[in-house]
This record gives sequence, structure tokens and C-alpha cells, in this order.
Amino acid sequence: MCRWLAYSGSPILIEELLYKPEHSLIDQSLHARLGVDTTNGDGFGLGWYGANTETPAVFHSIEPAWNDRNLREVAGHVHSPLFLAHIRASTGTAVQQTNCHPFRYGRWLWVHNGLVNDFGRVKRELTLAVDESLYPYMEGSTDSELLFYLALTFGLQEDPEGAVGRMVGFVEEVGRRHGTEHPIQMTVGTTDGESVWAFRYSSEGNSRTLYYSTDLGALRELYPDRPRLREVSEETRVIVSEPLGDLPGVWNEVPESSFGVVREGEDELHPFQPR
Amino acid sequence: MCRWLAYSGSPILIEELLYKPEHSLIDQSLHARLGVDTTNGDGFGLGWYGANTETPAVFHSIEPAWNDRNLREVAGHVHSPLFLAHIRASTGTAVQQTNCHPFRYGRWLWVHNGLVNDFGRVKRELTLAVDESLYPYMEGSTDSELLFYLALTFGLQEDPEGAVGRMVGFVEEVGRRHGTEHPIQMTVGTTDGESVWAFRYSSEGNSRTLYYSTDLGALRELYPDRPRLREVSEETRVIVSEPLGDLPGVWNEVPESSFGVVREGEDELHPFQPR
Amino acid sequence: MCRWLAYSGSPILIEELLYKPEHSLIDQSLHARLGVDTTNGDGFGLGWYGANTETPAVFHSIEPAWNDRNLREVAGHVHSPLFLAHIRASTGTAVQQTNCHPFRYGRWLWVHNGLVNDFGRVKRELTLAVDESLYPYMEGSTDSELLFYLALTFGLQEDPEGAVGRMVGFVEEVGRRHGTEHPIQMTVGTTDGESVWAFRYSSEGNSRTLYYSTDLGALRELYPDRPRLREVSEETRVIVSEPLGDLPGVWNEVPESSFGVVREGEDELHPFQPR
Amino acid sequence: MCRWLAYSGSPILIEELLYKPEHSLIDQSLHARLGVDTTNGDGFGLGWYGANTETPAVFHSIEPAWNDRNLREVAGHVHSPLFLAHIRASTGTAVQQTNCHPFRYGRWLWVHNGLVNDFGRVKRELTLAVDESLYPYMEGSTDSELLFYLALTFGLQEDPEGAVGRMVGFVEEVGRRHGTEHPIQMTVGTTDGESVWAFRYSSEGNSRTLYYSTDLGALRELYPDRPRLREVSEETRVIVSEPLGDLPGVWNEVPESSFGVVREGEDELHPFQPR
Repeated sequence: MCRWLAYSGSPILIEELLYKPEHSLIDQSLHARLGVDTTNGDGFGLGWYGANTETPAVFHSIEPAWNDRNLREVAGHVHSPLFLAHIRASTGTAVQQTNCHPFRYGRWLWVHNGLVNDFGRVKRELTLAVDESLYPYMEGSTDSELLFYLALTFGLQEDPEGAVGRMVGFVEEVGRRHGTEHPIQMTVGTTDGESVWAFRYSSEGNSRTLYYSTDLGALRELYPDRPRLREVSEETRVIVSEPLGDLPGVWNEVPESSFGVVREGEDELHPFQPR
Repeated sequence: MCRWLAYSGSPILIEELLYKPEHSLIDQSLHARLGVDTTNGDGFGLGWYGANTETPAVFHSIEPAWNDRNLREVAGHVHSPLFLAHIRASTGTAVQQTNCHPFRYGRWLWVHNGLVNDFGRVKRELTLAVDESLYPYMEGSTDSELLFYLALTFGLQEDPEGAVGRMVGFVEEVGRRHGTEHPIQMTVGTTDGESVWAFRYSSEGNSRTLYYSTDLGALRELYPDRPRLREVSEETRVIVSEPLGDLPGVWNEVPESSFGVVREGEDELHPFQPR
Repeated sequence: MCRWLAYSGSPILIEELLYKPEHSLIDQSLHARLGVDTTNGDGFGLGWYGANTETPAVFHSIEPAWNDRNLREVAGHVHSPLFLAHIRASTGTAVQQTNCHPFRYGRWLWVHNGLVNDFGRVKRELTLAVDESLYPYMEGSTDSELLFYLALTFGLQEDPEGAVGRMVGFVEEVGRRHGTEHPIQMTVGTTDGESVWAFRYSSEGNSRTLYYSTDLGALRELYPDRPRLREVSEETRVIVSEPLGDLPGVWNEVPESSFGVVREGEDELHPFQPR
Repeated sequence: MCRWLAYSGSPILIEELLYKPEHSLIDQSLHARLGVDTTNGDGFGLGWYGANTETPAVFHSIEPAWNDRNLREVAGHVHSPLFLAHIRASTGTAVQQTNCHPFRYGRWLWVHNGLVNDFGRVKRELTLAVDESLYPYMEGSTDSELLFYLALTFGLQEDPEGAVGRMVGFVEEVGRRHGTEHPIQMTVGTTDGESVWAFRYSSEGNSRTLYYSTDLGALRELYPDRPRLREVSEETRVIVSEPLGDLPGVWNEVPESSFGVVREGEDELHPFQPR
């Protein structure tokens, strides 16, 4: 099990979100509350978009996040309008940088919480379905990276919702053919640096938790005396595996079998189903 | 906070004790039950005595123990009649190999669970008290290593009980002079490769837990149908921060302000007090 | 490029061979003389056979070998009658433990120096040829590990020479079909814990160097005043990428396109060709 | 031995200087030309000043710089007007993050190439001379960090030249008292985020190399067809252990026993001597 977080909005110093809130993601690396495991100490990753660079930066480490000094330095000195962070609890694959999220392909980033059940049984067949031109870019050994490359194979860059739907449908079809009742369990965050898509789905209809933050306008009315809420733009949104802080009214659950899109203009929330 | 373990007895494959028992030390690295912290993921160490080598081997790593493949390999392929293992939860100092226990000097090993309160305030004065000839051997930045070198300074190699008593007395005197009410909290395991000394003490009289295993003869009577208990010698003893397994009658608490000695012949248990 | 070493003979403390000779393998990690690169600092590995354990131990690290304290501890405290050591200079794939040699499958170990040319072009096709039952055991991303699993697929455990011949033939066929003139470059050491096979081959007929040590009886006659040569058995042999020490008469080149077998009884040296 | 680099001028993407020049610092980690060692693979560090943050960021790693993916990511996505980078070849102390340069205290950074001779002999006495209020901030075990804290003790923040002079004088006095003929060997770079001071000195008068870049105006006249030279400000300067690139006229040696100051306005170069 893992925990992740996506931020989109006014540029902020990354530590503002990663370290400062009560029950922050870094705190969750040691003491998660809602997940299967309380410890997410098998490495972490941070991907951020900046100015003047074509692709996002990714910072991966096999150390636990809670004590990593380099992560604290980077988070304390880099501003970004859009970033993804992930803390890992391995479900068996090696603890190594190439297994750390977010995975990157071109301008795209991908984080995943969950697993492909009976992965050893289906890994080969799923791997073969990855487009030949994409195959050489896979570097690690996780189910999460493979799901990313399958989604890319199925058209993630042109049609994110459709591609993830086709990816999930394919994984379920292969898994069931190999005798697995509930082939996939996932929350996924993915972005091209402009929009963020967040999916919550599992074959058994009992998915890992996922939350998105309330509209800033509503939050400001709710908490007129919080100056921090005035400093960031109306468009600012955060998506998390597990709520941060303790302000009532801030967090809304992404419903089972749904996906949301965060982008400039109106955000969206829709039902999700495999194709 | 940390957890540690000492084994003395018939040579065994280290993994027999480190991995196989229910609620093993490796399991405690992720899910400790009795300590201040449930996670001990800030590195670990293993020190063992073998055949034909003058000094014990030490294996230190900054990775969490639960997923460390090299530890599993070493533990699964090395037999030893006497070894110490330690999993670390840093109380602030850096996660680096030179801060991993056991610390070694010549044939001696040392593990510690606890802390020197207000360490930053007294570190310099304590460091100055280390014998000049020993000073260059200190490599890390922990209170635990410093306590070892103070004990060596006060004669650990000739008179372990007296030296640890003088060390604790000195630390308490310096700490109180700097205004600290309860200067030291500790369980300590130390060995010269023949005997193992285990100390339980804290200035406030409320020390970290420590247990020693029951005499093998008594255990065999208690569990006549456990073949494993017949394979090891009468002299075999284990000392742990937290009990392993779930057999009633196996573990006995080291009393508050006490120390024990495990060696060939009769074991000992005595009151301990600073000098 | 990489450097490796295999030892078979009387049980010795591993450091005797790994650290003590002049121009030892550890020294070669910083200052190799014969290879393409002078530095082999992208991780290392050690695999050894011991007593009372079914499979060999493997110790892998991503640190340079020259400064690794754990390697020195293990090498200084473990005796073994048969071990393989490898220092890595990555040809592009990630520096991670799952890419460190020796690779292990059951009782077998495998080390490789060299590369599959244009690996990105042929990786997918080569991977597909790995037996489905072996596929899940591949954990890394190197050409070296893939060559091992191809050799296993082609029968390494029953017929080492034939299997490596078929593996090389297959890699050359696939490579040439993809337009690569010289598909493979290799020295390979592999063992089942009883015999050691060493192969030297490259498609271009210009292979990486490989040497084997002279028969102990001859060496003793040559150097009657070296007591160390009397301590090890007649059967003792060492195979290395690059000669150790500086005694004339100790090292013999494995000829281009050849393979040798070291085992109890008579050793063998034969021509090698792809099948 | 080590290599280091300091940049001060128009904000640039750090990789422009760290990776892109021929014979870049990263290249020197594997193949240094002018130093005692050709490999500087015992960790590295990068310290940079950015916008809106009070203290500089420091990124330290124990991996060799040449293959470190996180360093490449940070260098490829962070712009800075002033940064220091350092690659390390340990002279014996442990390879750990707390031994990586640059060292930081408040707004100050410090890098060092060289060593204190017979460090084990004088370490205790030098350590005792560090101001009590500074003592707790020392985290590592190197001579380099200790020189920094001695310089801070002697007034680095108010009078850099005088403080470094007094620090060197003190180290020489202590060393000679302990029978060391040539107590110190150093090039040092230090900065408060506005000026950069660079010192070249050794007790034996045979110091490690140090170079500074020619005035930009002169360089532009020399190379009128190099557009890159027009993009950065007149004030831009680089100081290096070993020249980058191969343009004649770019690099000037800092003379033996000298120090330079780079800051807005006129740069300075003066003789240096211990006090």
C-alpha cells in the first residue's frame, strides 16, 4: 500500500504542503491512518513542474521519507504550481529508485496506490501488450509502472479517461482468464503538467481511499480568518489518499468507481468504468 | 527508541532467531509493540562472533531492516554462537552507518536503547571525558556510541559492571549540572565474545523494557514436545527488548535498575546502580 | 565494462583473495588496467557457497566496492570453498541491487563482463524467449541477467556448455536480424556450487580478457619458498578478468572463443562456439 | 582529494555548468586530470541559493556523482545565481551524507579540497577549540567540516579573510606542536550568498590547483561568435579546482598562497597568509 498527493494551483514552496500540514504526507510515511499498512517506508518520490523546462523533474529515493534530508531540502527550496508526491509500501517488488513513483514519460507523470493481484501470474502477458516503441522505457519491476505503460499504449496522451478505462478492462480480462477474481485495485493520479486526472477503482468495488479538496471560494467563506486561504488562487486543488490537517469541510471523498479532472476552468467528477 | 537482541549459546543460523520467531526482531522493525515508537526503520546492525577471526564482524545498514536483502542473506548463511542485533529509531541524529549499533572496539560490541536527555547540551562535556587514546575511534554522532566510549574510558574491558556504573554516574552528574532532571534512559547489551552483560536503568526509574529467556532445562520440561528446544545447549540464552514468539514461560523481565551476565556456567542477575 | 573473479578450492577467508593480493579486485574497482574503463564503481556483488545451506548467499550493493565497509566485514569473516565476486561499470542501465551480479537461480550463480550491443533494440524479443516459468524470477533490467535466464531456458542446469552455446547463437541471430553486426561481447562465469564454467567469446572475435591460475603443483615447484601456496589444496583455481599480484607464471589467458571447466579431478579447456 | 566549483552571476540552470561543459565537474568525478586521484566517487554535494528562501539548499549524496539521477534532475530543473558543487575522494573518513560538502551554517556554505595531515593526532585538540555554541552543529567526522567550524569560531561571518587566516595559523601551530611538518593543505570556497571567497594555501607551499574564469568582457572580445557568452552578465565568474572546457584564455590560476573575492563590482585577488 502507498499514499500519494497531487497539488495544482498557485505556485507554492513544496514543503508548505508536503511537511507543514498536520498529518502531512511525510507524517503518513510513518503513521498512516486509513491504509492497509501504517508504515510507508519503502522509498518515495516527488515529481514537479517548474519554469523553463520541458519535462517535469522527478526525485526518487529508497530511503524512508520521514528522515530524508534531501527531500526536505528540495521541498524547502523549490516552488511549483503542480506536483505529485508518493510514499511507498512495497507489496513485494524490490526497493529501488526505478520502482519509485511518480513514473515519467515525456511530460506525463503517474502515481498509483494499490496492486495487480497475482501479479507474478500475469506480468508476462501484460508486459507483452505494451507497445514495442514504449517497451524500452520501462526500467523497474512494479505493477504500477506497467499499468502506466499499458495506459500509454492505450492512448493516455490523447484520451486519458478512455485509455485508463481500456487499461483496466484489459488487466481485468487477463487476470480473470488466469483465475483471479479481483484483478486490480487502484487509485491513480496522472498529469501532463496542465490537468490532473485522479481515478478510484477496484475490481471488487472496495477501493483504496481518495479525497479532493473543496473549492477555494467555499473554503474562504467557511474560514474567513485563515489568511493562507487568501494567498492561493481560486483554482487551487489538492488530491490525497488520506486527508491532511483537521479542518472540517476541506475534504470530499472521490466516490467509488469515479474519476475527477482538475484543470483551469471548471473541475469535473465522473463515474469510471473499465472498457 | 530502538529494539535489540543478544544471543549466546549453541551456534545457530542467525535467521533462526532474527527472522523465524513470531514477532521477530525484523517484524518489530515495522510493528514494535512495547516501545515509544512502533517503527524502527532508521537503519539496523548485526554483530557476530565466528570462528578463526579475532574481532567480531559488524554489518550496518541505513535501510529499514524489514526489506533489507543483504541482511536476510547474511542471516541465512552465517552460523554464530554469539551475536547482537539492533534496529534503530533515531532520536534526531543522522541516519548513517557510523550511527548504527552494535558499536565495536577490539573484541567488544555495544548496543543501546534509550537516550541521553538534552544531549546537545552535554555532548561536548561528555566527549571531552573520553580518553584521548580512544577519542579517534569514535566515528558517529550518537549518544549511544559516546556512552560506549565513556564506558571504555571508565574500564569496561576490565570491570564491565563497575565501568558502566561509573559511566552512568558521570552522565547523571554532568546532566544534572546542566539542569536535566533525568539525564539517562537505557538498556545496554555489551559483550567481549564470551560473556554478555545486559543493563536496565534510567534516572527516572522507569526504564525501557528488557527480557531474558528462561533456563533451557526448565523450558524443556515445560515443552517436552518441542524438538527445537533439544537442539541447543543448556547454556543457550536470549536477551531482548521485546519478547519474541508467544510461548508462556519463556520470557522473564530484567527488573528495573538491574543487570545480568550470561556466560558459561551459572548466569547472574544483580541490582545496578550508578557510582 | 566490469571485472569479475571466481575461486574454487580449499575454504579460505574471502578477503584473502578479494583484498589482499596486489592489484586485487577491490583495487581494480578504482584502478583497472586492462578494461575499457578504469573505474568499476557502479555497485558490486559477492556470491558464496557455505556449509549447511542449500543455496549460495549473495551480497549486492550499489556503493563502489573500494569503500564499502560491509563488504570488507563479510569478506573478513566468512570462509568459503567457492565464491564469485563482481564489480560493475554500468553500460547504461540503472545502478540498483537487482542489477548487481552474481545473479542467482536455485543453486546457480552467474557473472558477466561485456554487453549485448544495441540492447534496447533486441531486449523485448530476447525477453520473450525466456521460459514462462522463469520469467517471474527476473528482477533487474540488465542484459547480463537476461543472458542468464536465456541460458537457463536453453538448459544451463543440464548442459552448461550446450546451453550457453545456444544462448549465444540465439542472441547473435536476433541481433543480426535487427541489423547489429557484432551482437554480443562476453566473458561469463557460472557455477552450480561444484564446478565453475568460464566462457570467453565475442561476435567480433575480440573478447574481453580472462585468465585462469596455473596448477598448484606447478606453482609450488616454481615458488618453493611461498608457504601460502602449500596451505591450499592441489585443486585450487582462480579465474579473473585481470591478473592479480605480480608473480610470473601464475596466470594463463583463456584463449579467444574458449571455455574452461574447473572441478574436482582434471580441469578442462575447450573451444567454444555458438550453436 | 576532491574537486569543487563555484558559480556566481546571472541565474542559470545548474546543469549548464555542472554537466554540459567538456570535462565538466561530473566528468571529473570519473576522470580527474590534475589531482592526486583520478576518481572522486565518494559522494558529492551541491549547495545553491534561490529566491524567497533564507538559507541555501544543500543536496548531499553518498553515491558517485556520475550516475546519480537525482543530481541530474535537480541540476536540470533548478536555476540559481550562486552555487557550489563538490565531488569527494575520501582520505579515510566515512562516506556518509554528513561528510559531504558543502557544509552549511546559516547562510554560509563551505567546500574544501585538501586535508589536515595526521588528522587523527590533532582532531581532539582542534575540536576543543570550536566555540561551545557552534559545537553541537558539527555532524560529520571530516577535517573539512572542522576547518569550517574553526573558521566560524575565528569570525568567518564578520571577517572572512582574517578568520581563515587565523584558522590556518591555529591549525599549523597545533599540527607543528604534534610534530607534523606540513599541517594543512587546502583550497577552500566559501560564500554568504552574496560574495564568494576562494583560498589557495598549503603549509608546504605546494597547494592543490585552483582557477578562476576571465572577466566576461574580455572573453566576449576573444570569442565574438559565442552566443552563450552574451547571455550571462558581466559579473559572472566561475572558480574551479580543474579547468572546464578547452577554450584558451578562459582560465587563470589562483597563485600559490592567495585568495580571491568575487562579488558585484570589482573582484579582488590578494596574497594570503596564516595569522
